[in-house]
Amino acid sequence: MKSPKPSLSVQAVLFDAYGTLFDVYSVGTLAEQLFPGQGEALAVLWRDKQIEYTRLVSMSQRYRPFWELTRAGLRYACARLQLDLTPERETQLLNQYRHLGAFPENKAVLTALKARGVTTGILSNGDPEMLGIAVRSAGYVDDKGQGLLDHVLSVESVQRFKTDPAAYALGPQALGIPARQILFVSSNGWDAIGATWYGYCTLWVNRFKLPLEALDTEPTRTGSSLRDVLDFFPKT
Amino acid sequence: MKSPKPSLSVQAVLFDAYGTLFDVYSVGTLAEQLFPGQGEALAVLWRDKQIEYTRLVSMSQRYRPFWELTRAGLRYACARLQLDLTPERETQLLNQYRHLGAFPENKAVLTALKARGVTTGILSNGDPEMLGIAVRSAGYVDDKGQGLLDHVLSVESVQRFKTDPAAYALGPQALGIPARQILFVSSNGWDAIGATWYGYCTLWVNRFKLPLEALDTEPTRTGSSLRDVLDFFPKT
Repeated sequence: MKSPKPSLSVQAVLFDAYGTLFDVYSVGTLAEQLFPGQGEALAVLWRDKQIEYTRLVSMSQRYRPFWELTRAGLRYACARLQLDLTPERETQLLNQYRHLGAFPENKAVLTALKARGVTTGILSNGDPEMLGIAVRSAGYVDDKGQGLLDHVLSVESVQRFKTDPAAYALGPQALGIPARQILFVSSNGWDAIGATWYGYCTLWVNRFKLPLEALDTEPTRTGSSLRDVLDFFPKT
Repeated sequence: MKSPKPSLSVQAVLFDAYGTLFDVYSVGTLAEQLFPGQGEALAVLWRDKQIEYTRLVSMSQRYRPFWELTRAGLRYACARLQLDLTPERETQLLNQYRHLGAFPENKAVLTALKARGVTTGILSNGDPEMLGIAVRSAGYVDDKGQGLLDHVLSVESVQRFKTDPAAYALGPQALGIPARQILFVSSNGWDAIGATWYGYCTLWVNRFKLPLEALDTEPTRTGSSLRDVLDFFPKT
């Protein structure tokens, strides 16, 4: 069994949601049906614009809910790719986004973490309603909010998106322990770097074998699937 | 002669530098020589990452000079495109970036503005050294800082990149007039929107016929070349 260095005494884990637990590119299939030959390009540009918009409004202190920015990103991406986004197609694509596919290994990992007594949660740019639907759809929490996740934290409460420190501060505040004792897990390289800057112990789940962001900062560790989280919490 | 609405009583003009006065994609030619078939892809991704990095470090309150982020963006873009960026090639490409081509109409527009008695300047993410080299290379100012530009403002002094309000605040502070009396000109749609949010009168020079950012905000006007600036300052 691989075991973490003794200094990595993490007691809890917070997951990014979009891209990490939920597959933001799973909308590509429907996009391809609606716009043959352009599905992948649309899925990629949609995601890029969505994230770009979170940063613009956050930097400009003009927060808007993630859901609105998700719709805005879709509209821009279709305009840019010259795709005819009818109201019906927009509704279909947004409905798909509301019920994104979850990565297959997630549930086993979350179940194992609970079995090991680890506190778990989400810390996401998503707004509470989106997150609520997504985690219930994936079966991580039941209607009473009980289940595999102890915390579902949305940046909505601070009106700043990641990588603003106010967003990352939600973790230590909710869990009552310092960031260095919390493992923050993201598949988004920039999010893993932002969380590292903030002071978290971090795991970058590099699902697409992308280069590390060239910002002279490394996440604590890099893995390839959510399973790599378990190495931080050895069975006792 | 087209004339602005009476309410647009602008007294000065501030230009964005990169993309607006200087052609950031002019590095594509050298990039294509160094990496045949990949020059355009590299120029686009390099620019995207450079801008992304300004936002990440600004949001995370970890400012780094634009020059460093320009280099970081180049390194990431080459890694992502699997291009072999030798130290020699990096030096060549960065040297090219230091001496970006200026758009051909600029000088006539700046000269006409001076003839009409308009205060002019740059408000840029670039650091002072980069800007100094670029404006001297383009012949906008001489070695004593005299010439077609009255102000060269860099966000370095506030350690925040656009679209942070602290960056846009540099304009009114330096010019001593409110933002609504200053025309802010950018070819970057997001920058035109950010400046509009801040309170400037804005012109988006949409050189590439891109869609408007889907953020429910329009620049005061949209044009297609720097010449459109002159409509705001009719000959008297």
